[in-house]
Amino acid sequence: MAFRNVAIIGLGLLGSSLGLAVRKHLPDVHTTGFDADPAVREKARELGLCHAIADDPAAAVRSADLVVLCVPVGAMRAAATAIAPGLAPDAVISDVGSSKQRVAHALAETLPDHTIIPAHPVAGTEQSGPEAGFASLFEKRWCIITPPDGVDASKLEALGDFWRRLGSTVEIMDAEHHDMVLAVTSHIPHLIAYTIVGTASDLEDVTRSEVIKYSAGGFRDFTRIAASDPTMWRDVFLHNKDAVLEMMDRFLGDLGAMRDAIEAADGDAMFDLFSRTRAIRRGILEQGQDDARPDFGREHS
Amino acid sequence: MAFRNVAIIGLGLLGSSLGLAVRKHLPDVHTTGFDADPAVREKARELGLCHAIADDPAAAVRSADLVVLCVPVGAMRAAATAIAPGLAPDAVISDVGSSKQRVAHALAETLPDHTIIPAHPVAGTEQSGPEAGFASLFEKRWCIITPPDGVDASKLEALGDFWRRLGSTVEIMDAEHHDMVLAVTSHIPHLIAYTIVGTASDLEDVTRSEVIKYSAGGFRDFTRIAASDPTMWRDVFLHNKDAVLEMMDRFLGDLGAMRDAIEAADGDAMFDLFSRTRAIRRGILEQGQDDARPDFGREHS
Repeated sequence: MAFRNVAIIGLGLLGSSLGLAVRKHLPDVHTTGFDADPAVREKARELGLCHAIADDPAAAVRSADLVVLCVPVGAMRAAATAIAPGLAPDAVISDVGSSKQRVAHALAETLPDHTIIPAHPVAGTEQSGPEAGFASLFEKRWCIITPPDGVDASKLEALGDFWRRLGSTVEIMDAEHHDMVLAVTSHIPHLIAYTIVGTASDLEDVTRSEVIKYSAGGFRDFTRIAASDPTMWRDVFLHNKDAVLEMMDRFLGDLGAMRDAIEAADGDAMFDLFSRTRAIRRGILEQGQDDARPDFGREHS
Repeated sequence: MAFRNVAIIGLGLLGSSLGLAVRKHLPDVHTTGFDADPAVREKARELGLCHAIADDPAAAVRSADLVVLCVPVGAMRAAATAIAPGLAPDAVISDVGSSKQRVAHALAETLPDHTIIPAHPVAGTEQSGPEAGFASLFEKRWCIITPPDGVDASKLEALGDFWRRLGSTVEIMDAEHHDMVLAVTSHIPHLIAYTIVGTASDLEDVTRSEVIKYSAGGFRDFTRIAASDPTMWRDVFLHNKDAVLEMMDRFLGDLGAMRDAIEAADGDAMFDLFSRTRAIRRGILEQGQDDARPDFGREHS
């Protein structure tokens, strides 16, 4: 392992999981954590998320050869500014943000003299905060690294090695392509989930209590990701606007077509779509990207 | 228990689960099953889903005091026609269909001299067929009964008692209201899930393999219900068209508003929605309608 000292800035679900994952998989690596919220720092000390918790962001990165920013994408620029005075000249600066083009831009602008290699571990749960983390979050998940042009090859390899040792499979991707792929596989699903849960909670002729009672018919699946961290997701939509709008318009077009099919009682069009979509689920299960048990393995009774 | 002999017509996920649930909870009740597909009947015999499997629908209901139709809602009329010659005059005819107004109408037209009490157990998984059934499917789930005007009170009570003994909580509801509630909590979620999975699989600049690889970012949640039985769901949308279109238009309106908020970079509108939706999730967990473990209790690593 090229990195001996890792600083983790931001100790929510991702940062706390990263601290615990390093403890589990890389026992020789020393971790220092920081969070802007003193209560989170206190909780992090209590939980032993890192070997040390600093009260100052510049102090947190002082001896780090790898700094991983684990804050909402809208807070990346401020976090980079805050750590700048403490950074060693050869430290690698990375992150875990869900959108990559604008994060890369903000970090490069703020830290022009440092090696910045943005990354995105595609992993998470609907929970947030320092108590939500767990060491296996990144295992068997993808970590997408979006290196800028002309990046130092050995530092890129070192970052890939770091994530692989935490159990992830590393993929190198262009930041623009990343933002388009993630718009489809993550951002639009979250936006749809938030919206339908909002639609349901605003109804007058169907009460909120009925929506909750009968949610096992399908609705409850959407409520999980609609319980995700509001700040994180607001920032994602502000930062990946173009790709999200492009995918959204395709989805809106397809949804309009299904609306027309229902209005026209076109059973064949519905049957055709409903059959095609099974293949995607099969692919996900075959590649071990979801629990194959019925109903996500939820407990029955 | 008022019913001694129960006939189950249709042995897919719901019918097979019903057979197994009766065996588990009501060992004194005799069940006879029928399915239009000979291969399903053979499988049902092999699995012991019912005490007897008949090769003829009229023979299956001959001694039944309760008949439960477990076929797609579009096949209810044909199933009722097929069992008519064998029905005892005082038998109760019920069903498990996900839409109720048109099913009630079709059954009443086909069997004008019988007691028809439609019902809908709000339970299921994305799997289908006789091997997908399990005895606890209905436990801690709601069963909505939508009795017609002037129904025999003792027969209604008997049907409610039957479902309660299988572990369900029974709710009595007007069929029209049922169809509106379920449009929100089940039908629209399925339609959205089918559509977004279709949108993703039709993309050109993001490959299907990328959609599958990075599905853990949220998308995979939608693929589960988008793997549900295509015939069943086509029929639901054909049979609950009005309520589905009404709810769909509300959702489309809300989604358009979120699209505008993203375009206008209106972070406050997003944050407001994303915060409100957490309350619904909390309600669902408090009422035991979903697994409270993070990520539906999916296995990590």
